[in-house]
Formats: sequence, structure tokens, C-alpha cells
Amino acid sequence: MLEVTDATLRVIFGDTDQMGVVYYANYFRYFEFARGEFFRARGGHYGALEREGYGLPVVAAHCDYRRPAKYDDLLSIRATLSETRRASLRFDYEVRRDEALLATGHTVHACVGRDGKPTGLPPSLLKLFTA
Amino acid sequence: MLEVTDATLRVIFGDTDQMGVVYYANYFRYFEFARGEFFRARGGHYGALEREGYGLPVVAAHCDYRRPAKYDDLLSIRATLSETRRASLRFDYEVRRDEALLATGHTVHACVGRDGKPTGLPPSLLKLFTA
Amino acid sequence: MLEVTDATLRVIFGDTDQMGVVYYANYFRYFEFARGEFFRARGGHYGALEREGYGLPVVAAHCDYRRPAKYDDLLSIRATLSETRRASLRFDYEVRRDEALLATGHTVHACVGRDGKPTGLPPSLLKLFTA
Amino acid sequence: MLEVTDATLRVIFGDTDQMGVVYYANYFRYFEFARGEFFRARGGHYGALEREGYGLPVVAAHCDYRRPAKYDDLLSIRATLSETRRASLRFDYEVRRDEALLATGHTVHACVGRDGKPTGLPPSLLKLFTA
Repeated sequence: MLEVTDATLRVIFGDTDQMGVVYYANYFRYFEFARGEFFRARGGHYGALEREGYGLPVVAAHCDYRRPAKYDDLLSIRATLSETRRASLRFDYEVRRDEALLATGHTVHACVGRDGKPTGLPPSLLKLFTA
Repeated sequence: MLEVTDATLRVIFGDTDQMGVVYYANYFRYFEFARGEFFRARGGHYGALEREGYGLPVVAAHCDYRRPAKYDDLLSIRATLSETRRASLRFDYEVRRDEALLATGHTVHACVGRDGKPTGLPPSLLKLFTA
Repeated sequence: MLEVTDATLRVIFGDTDQMGVVYYANYFRYFEFARGEFFRARGGHYGALEREGYGLPVVAAHCDYRRPAKYDDLLSIRATLSETRRASLRFDYEVRRDEALLATGHTVHACVGRDGKPTGLPPSLLKLFTA
Repeated sequence: MLEVTDATLRVIFGDTDQMGVVYYANYFRYFEFARGEFFRARGGHYGALEREGYGLPVVAAHCDYRRPAKYDDLLSIRATLSETRRASLRFDYEVRRDEALLATGHTVHACVGRDGKPTGLPPSLLKLFTA
């Protein structure tokens, strides 16, 4: 399956909170990082999409936390393009430390044009996904 | 209904991203802020709960984004205790700028003891909620 | 002295790290918050300045940490306009919990025009400072 | 010179602000990341130091911003151990995108024991630095 990218990052102190684990909001930063790597792995670039006049704002975001990630963990975040519709798409994510699954989640994105109104996914994006 | 608290905060540059709106992960910071105010409004304190040996880690978090919040917006975040179970609870959130509803979301929390294992909600917490 | 504004904020979990104190980078978020309140207290608005075609990017930032701020602390951040030059200005900051001084710092800002090049402080800004 | 480590990271949307550049506070997150890599490159681990009962809290932090870092930039952050005293040390940092120097800065750290009081740098740390 082509529509998957694994991104790797190191947890820093700034990601943790005083419970000694990664603060729950920061998983959404990790998701975004993996999303960006997904585009890059296909020769694309989210910034290029913006220059073409398109945006993919998040309309929904979800995370299920199973086990805590901790300081200095080397995390692997898998982004999967799980759904493409006419004017929206969905990514699913899995956060792992070695084999252990720490969190899963997803984001739903609308495709909007320069006016901020919903528009069909641009050909350059569709081409990227089927590359 | 007593189980509601409104918290107010000002959006800073550090909350926004280059799309000119509040970065999606930061809504979860806002949710946490409102959750903390919820406890305080009832004479409670999340830190006190921790000192008693209990924790309420987030096991699921969700946000639906309707309209973007922007720099300098004065946001009102409403936290509602929407469900209490034996060993978990759920908060629902509404983020508003004046009357406009910008985002809704929820968090589900497990109640755990000092050993990190699930445990019933402590009496001090239940008392707080029914105060 | 007119050029002082005190801003108040509550420390959330998301501001802390696993050492149980506010993460050092977040003091710069607090400084920015106080800076924004400084403008607002004078009837100004940093966003308005941007719309006029000016920016005040940070060219240097410094913080000295004396005592740690902690979860749930109600912090008072004082912003003082300590220096205005032809094309730059400096703010100094003091972070307090009640009477205790927790941190001090400063930021230096260049004034730039729409082309990103240094330019004199605009009249609207100078007027604000002497109001 | 052994006391140098280069760490590499990718700028995400969550690091930027609405001025279209990396938010100034986030450079201190980058510094911390490079500091962590510095320890790891020498076979050390900041977490291990903590378990031994020592901490290296930041007592001063500074950054000079030369050119903005932007979304999707691949940054190289060089951490140099520039000074060791009996009970404190200093790191200097350089943030680069390819050859371009974007920012420089430093942090000063006190060495404290389990009681939070200043103490001499532990032998395990000195050994690390001279390895």
C-alpha cells in the first residue's frame, strides 16, 4: 500500500508535562509532522499546494491514548491516507515506540480554494496520491 | 445546570500558525485551561487530586473545527462535565468568540490510582461535582 | 511611568514539563502575552500595526530564571517599554507570583516595513507610546 | 573539538506563527533538542542524570534572531559546550538552514542536587564531557 509514510521523532522535555509524559495536545503536532512527511515522501509539498491557491484546513481531529510516550522516546508516527472524497480527505495515524502502539488518531481535512470555500481536490494532489 | 464553567483567554501569536489562524493542536490546550477552571470554580484543584494519589489522564480527545479563531481574539471556552462513570468521566467543550461558535470537542478521562491502574472516582471528586 | 502594563495568566499543564515546572521556552510566550496587553492598554493593537504595513520582529530575546513557576500559578507579567530608538525598541519583563519575582527578561524588536527592511517607528506607534 | 553536536529537525506548521516564520519562543525548543542530542552523542542521557539525583535547570537563556526560519525548513542546530564551572555550565547554539546562519543563542544551567540546591557537576557528567 503506497498511501503510508512513517516519520520518526525524538520526544523533548518541551513535549512533556508534569505528569512525566507527553502532553496530550502534542500528539496532534506529531500527526502534523507525519502528514508533512507523507507529502514529502511522494515528491509533494504542502507549501506548494498553498502557492497553487489551495488549503487543507483540519475540520476534525481525534486521538485515542493507549500508553504514554515519554521523554527521549524515539517515536514512529505512521500517516495513512485513509479516505479521499471530492472535497475532503482523511488521514489516520499510529504512534509507536518500537513495537508498542501508544496512540491512534485521525484528522479530516476540507479542501478549500483561495476564497476559503470548499472546492474539489486539485489534480496535482490527486496525482500525488496515486503516484 | 451546575456542571458548566466558562473560561476566557486571549489568543497570542504563539497560538497561531502561518495560515493566520489558531493552530489546531492548541484548541486542546484551551480545553485543558477550561477544565482547570471547572475544578477551580467548584473549590477544587486538579493538583490536590494528584496529591491524594489520583490522576485523570486523557484517554481520548476530539475537536470539530467550525470557524477559525484568530490572533487577539478573546475566546470563551465552556467546559461541561457531560458524563461520569465508575472509573471515568467526560468533558465537552465549546469555543466561542462572542456569539460565534468556533469549535466543539470533548475529552474522556480515566481515573487512575498511584499505580497507574484504573480506580473508581474518589469521593472528594464526586463531592466536587455535586457541590 | 506610563509605559508599563501588567498582564495576568494561569499556568496550565501544557505549560509545564516533566521537571514539574514551567518549561523555559514558555516564558517567552508569557512575554508576548504581556507585550500584546501593553499595546491594548494604550488603545493600540499589534494587528493594526501590521495592517498599516509595519512589523516588529524580535531580533533578540533573553530570560533569567530565578524561581520556578508551577502548575496552576496565577502569574503577573509586567511589560515595560524600556527603550525606543529610531528603528527599534526594547521591552523588559518581570514575571511574578504574588510578590515573588520568578523571572526577568527582555526582547528587542526591529521595526520593518512591508519589504521586511528596517524603517523608522511609525507615527501611530510613537503616538501610542506617548499617549 | 569534541564538545559539539549537530542535530537536525524539520519545521512544522505548529512551529510557525501568522507572520509566516518560526515563532521566536520555539528556537528554545530547538536548543533543547540539540542539547539532548549532545548528551546522547556522548553515550549519556539527561534522564539518567536525573535518576542519579541531579538536575541542570536553565538559569538564563538568550537568542539572537538573524534570518527567519520557515515552514518545512530542514534546520541544523549545533550545540557547543562552551563553559563548565564548578556548579554550572553553558551551551552555545547555532541554527542553520544549509549554510545560512539563522539564529545564535546560549543557555546557562545550574547543577542542582535532589534538594534543588546548587552542587558540583557530578563525575558521571564530567566524564561524559571529556570522553
